[in-house]
Order: sequence, then structure tokens, then C-alpha cells
Amino acid sequence: MSATATATVVTEELTAGIPRFSDHSPREFVGWFTPWLVRSAEDLDRTFGSPSIQADLLDAVGSLAVLRAAGDGDAFFAQQYLLSRIYALHLQLPTGDTAEGSVVLHAVTRRLELDTMAAEDAWLDESALSGGPEDMEDYVPWLKDLTRAHRAFKHPYYHEFVRNEATPADLRTYVVQESAVDSRFDDLLALMQLGTSGAEKMEIAANFWDEMGNGDPAQVHTLLFSRIIDSFGITEAELAGGLSAEALLSGNLAVLCCRYRYLFPEAVGFLAMTEWLVPDRFSQVLHAWRRLELPDPAIVYHELHIGVDAHHASGWFANVVKPAAADPAARRGMTRGALWRLNSSARYLDHSLAQAR
Amino acid sequence: MSATATATVVTEELTAGIPRFSDHSPREFVGWFTPWLVRSAEDLDRTFGSPSIQADLLDAVGSLAVLRAAGDGDAFFAQQYLLSRIYALHLQLPTGDTAEGSVVLHAVTRRLELDTMAAEDAWLDESALSGGPEDMEDYVPWLKDLTRAHRAFKHPYYHEFVRNEATPADLRTYVVQESAVDSRFDDLLALMQLGTSGAEKMEIAANFWDEMGNGDPAQVHTLLFSRIIDSFGITEAELAGGLSAEALLSGNLAVLCCRYRYLFPEAVGFLAMTEWLVPDRFSQVLHAWRRLELPDPAIVYHELHIGVDAHHASGWFANVVKPAAADPAARRGMTRGALWRLNSSARYLDHSLAQAR
Repeated sequence: MSATATATVVTEELTAGIPRFSDHSPREFVGWFTPWLVRSAEDLDRTFGSPSIQADLLDAVGSLAVLRAAGDGDAFFAQQYLLSRIYALHLQLPTGDTAEGSVVLHAVTRRLELDTMAAEDAWLDESALSGGPEDMEDYVPWLKDLTRAHRAFKHPYYHEFVRNEATPADLRTYVVQESAVDSRFDDLLALMQLGTSGAEKMEIAANFWDEMGNGDPAQVHTLLFSRIIDSFGITEAELAGGLSAEALLSGNLAVLCCRYRYLFPEAVGFLAMTEWLVPDRFSQVLHAWRRLELPDPAIVYHELHIGVDAHHASGWFANVVKPAAADPAARRGMTRGALWRLNSSARYLDHSLAQAR
Repeated sequence: MSATATATVVTEELTAGIPRFSDHSPREFVGWFTPWLVRSAEDLDRTFGSPSIQADLLDAVGSLAVLRAAGDGDAFFAQQYLLSRIYALHLQLPTGDTAEGSVVLHAVTRRLELDTMAAEDAWLDESALSGGPEDMEDYVPWLKDLTRAHRAFKHPYYHEFVRNEATPADLRTYVVQESAVDSRFDDLLALMQLGTSGAEKMEIAANFWDEMGNGDPAQVHTLLFSRIIDSFGITEAELAGGLSAEALLSGNLAVLCCRYRYLFPEAVGFLAMTEWLVPDRFSQVLHAWRRLELPDPAIVYHELHIGVDAHHASGWFANVVKPAAADPAARRGMTRGALWRLNSSARYLDHSLAQAR
């Protein structure tokens, strides 16, 4: 029997149990597929491994991008939710079966990742991407100027809404959305430093060690963040299911940059912007917390980050961004990653502001 | 045109440029395929993406395992060399194109990984795997007893050959082979700690920070190791091409355990054994270095590790192994990983001893 004939037989045997994806909405499709992530990789590859079934599955995944580009918010959510659930396999210890190593799942993941990057790239213009000065001394000031002129910088969500208007319920919502990045910042740094060396590696490693409270278990940043989560009584279910598409995208882009060595320049730009914007943003959050006399854990966390991240950002610019800026491809990658962060952050904050008001 | 018809056309178009893998030796096949790793993921997926070509490629990869099981040393080398070159994509920053994200490459990688794990599992018997005591207090002493009774413990390669007989040229060969693990131990720890929390995460993170010289750039362990490499005038080409199949396997197994969350228990067992065996082994190396009055860098590195790794191993047993031992699946995984390390290390040392004498 030829390989082609085998594939046809397998298709006929299995399609009985698999819905025609085109008959279903994005949320239905993703709702149907997600439980496969906590079955074994062997199960997933056996069920979806035949060429025609895999092609159907990838078409369904790709259609989320097509619908998203046409303005379908549900498809955008479904796309980013699925990617976030896949990333959880790579960033959380499993409690049972996991499809982590599956070959079919990697194909699905890459489709989601390439579509997600293409959507971000569609917001970029060539002049900005290639506009970074050739002299590495000039690159960091140029990047900071680009940022200061960006809508994400001193966004009204932080400077008006959070600072002066937000209620405790609004801040609870804010904390849920922020969990997409803050709850695993240490692991992003651990991932992104793979393969680096010298001053660059030390800068990222020291940043990681700061996140680990410099060895003091009570000062581990993700623990401090989890105390805020607890102080609001936010559940695991809310964290897994309560994030907006925009928040999921912010978290996914951070993981995406950090998990591939070929995206290292993008990760450098992305995280440089993330850390550089934190002190000013968290100052607004701190103001709100004091205005509302909310519990202490968040004050500890945000005060800590205002100091530490300013320090991190300057070390990052000096020891990681600036040395890399000598290389044109790295410069372009860093600018791309920085703009991915700024643009996605601006859209996230626009959405948060619209939801809140 | 149906998906099946498209696949057939693609096959006909492309097979002209792709050799019939079954006509070639394992080394020829891997020598032909490896350059694809430094082409773009898009190139690789376009060229090998059709179902029949991908099936042929995976058959060729799988045949390495079949030949290896039949005692073919070239196939064993080719299998582990290919896996090590793939892992380099995930653990080194690229200098040009890389197939890192490729879907076809992930299929190749999983075939190599599953075959590699199956070969290690074939050395294990069920009584050892399931023999770990249920009481977590008893598990660590049991694991240590298992190790003390193992051929890898106080192996004659270290206790006789390296200590008393090795020439400078022998130690040079030793350093090349050891680079499979020592040159990237920090990144293994960074990878394996993803998704952990609490005391477990802190133990691994502190271990990582020790590898980073606790923030002192001059004391970064991989830098100290690279000084030994330099003191022997060992080149990049030797490190990439001069390792034995057994050395490559040791390095690959370490990466394999650390890069998947579902193999976290295996990684814990694997690295516990690695670190626990270091002080005694490195004492023999140190003895040889002094006997031969060889250059300092290696003395610094090995003295440091004799002290630090004894400390690491006890922390690792107390804070990572013991707490995890309460869970039967984790206990089994840790035992499996420990035995993977002990068995592969014993075969590596047997091979090194046979080569040396």
C-alpha cells in the first residue's frame, strides 16, 4: 500500500470523530481542540497525524488569522487563547498527560506564531524598522525618542484612569490582565538568556536573580505578585480564562520572543521596552493603591519594581542593547521587538480603557 | 486540486534534488542533512514538507536507531551527532540562517529523542524503576545506595587511568569529551527550572547563579571551562566534530531531560547524579593535573567544582529530590533519569578507557 493510500484510509477511519472545523465558530473550534493539550503527545499525533487531517487542522488554525485580520474579535481571542494554553505546556509542570512534545502540536504552534508575528509586522513601517542609527552610541537615545513619541508612553489608561479614577474592582481586573506577563517574568529571562555569553548573559542572569529575590524566598517577585492575586481572591480559573485577547497577546509575544534563539534581538527590544516603561506605569498604580487604601502586597511589589526596573532598564540598555546595536540585523530585530511591545501595549491599554469606561 | 494530488506533484518536483536515503550510509545521510540546519526554517519546510518526502526523511532518521540497536557504531554516532547539532540551534545564538522553528525539523528531533530515550530505557529493568521506597525519607538513601553499587561510581577511568596514567594528550581528549555537558551547564539549569516554584525553584536558581559566579564575571563557570579549552588550544571545530558518540549521548540526554516539562522528574534524577558524582571524579582529575604540572585554569575550575557541587548535590537532594519523592510518578521519573545518567556515564567511561588504553 502506498503512503497516499494509507493516508486516505486513516482519514476515513478518523474523521467520524473529528468535526468539520469549517462548520464551527472560532471559539467552538478552540474549545474543542484545547482538551487535546492535556492528552498525551502520542494520542494527539495518532489522531491528527495523517496528512489530510493535519492539513484540515492547520487550515482551521490559519483561518483564525484570516478572520482576525477581517476584524473578528472572537477569532483574535481564540487564536491568542489557544497559543497561551500551548505555552502553558512549555512553562508549567504538568499534573497529568501533556501533548508538550507532539509533532502535530508544533505545527499548530508554528502556524499560530507565524500568524501572530505577521499581524504585528503589519503594524510596522519599513522606515522605523530600518531607521535605527548605525552608530551604536546613537541607537539607545534614538530608541528612547521613538518610545517617548509613542502612544504607549504615558498612556491615559495609567496616567488618567488608573491614577485618578479606578475603583478596587477596576484594579482587580487590571491585576488579572497583567498576570499574562508578571506571573512568569523570571522564566522569560531564563529562556531568553540561553546561548548568550559575557556581559550580555550576566546582565540577564542578574536580572533573573533579582526576580528570584537575590536568593531570599520571601522576596521572589512572582511570589509577591501571587500575593496580590490572593489578596483579591482571584482564582486559577480566572487567570486561565479571564484574560482579554489583548492581554493574552502581550503575554504570548513575550514568550514567543524569548523561546527562540533566532528571535533573540526581538526579545532584547521587547523586554527593554517592558522594563523601561514599568517605573512610570507602576508609579500610577501605586498612587491608585494609596488613594484607595488597598492591601499592602501590591504596594511592596510595585515599589520594588519601580526601583529595580529603572536599574534593570539602564543596565539592559548599556550591556545588552548598545553592544548588539553595532550589527544591522540585530539592530533591526531589536527595533522590531521594541515596536511589537509598544504597539501591542498601546492596543492593550486602549482596550483596557474602553472596557473600564 | 485535492491536497493528495498537490502532495504528489510536490514529491515529483523535489525528489530529483534529494538522494534516496536508503542508498547511503548513516554518516553520509547525516553529513548530507546537517547543512539544512543552517538554512531557514522556511527552506527546510518547503523542501521536506510534503508527506511522502517527510516520511522518507523520518524513515532515514529512524533507521539510525535500528542500525544502532544492531550494533552499528557509525549509526549511533550519526544519530547522536545529528541530535547534538539540532540542540545547538536551540542553545546557541545563530550567526546566520537557522532552521530552529521548522516543523519538519521538530518531527526529526522527536524521532531522534524518542529513539534515544527508548535505547536508554532498554537498559533499565522494571524492578529498579519501581523500586524506590514509598517513604520519601527513605528515597534519597536508596538512590545513593543504588548509585554506590553502580559501575559508574568510582569508575576505573577516573580512579585508575586519569588519576595515575593519563598523559597531557589524554587529558586534552578528556576535556574535549567533557565539553558536551560542562560548557553549558548554566543553560541546562535555566531550562530545567522553567515552571518550578518555591524551594525547588530557588535551589535550581541558586545553582544557576553559582554557575554564573554569583555575579562575578571572572568566576562564571563556563568561562573557567573555556579557559581550559583555550589552554589546550582546542578549536571550535574539534568541539563540534571531535566528540565520541558516547560523549554526545551524555550531552544530549542532559538537554533532552531539561527541555521538556514532562521530563522534569527525569531531569531532577539526571542532574542529581551528575552533580553528586562530580566531587569524587574531579578529585582524580585534579590529582592528574598536579601530577603532570599542567596549567592553572583547570585547577581553578576543578577545585571550585569539588566544593560547590558537593554543596549543590546535598541541597538538590534535600530541596528537590526528597520533596518530589512523595509522588509515585515523580519518584519513578527521578529514578529513570538517575539511571539514564549512571548507565550512559558508565558506557561513556568504558569507551573512554578502551580508547585511551
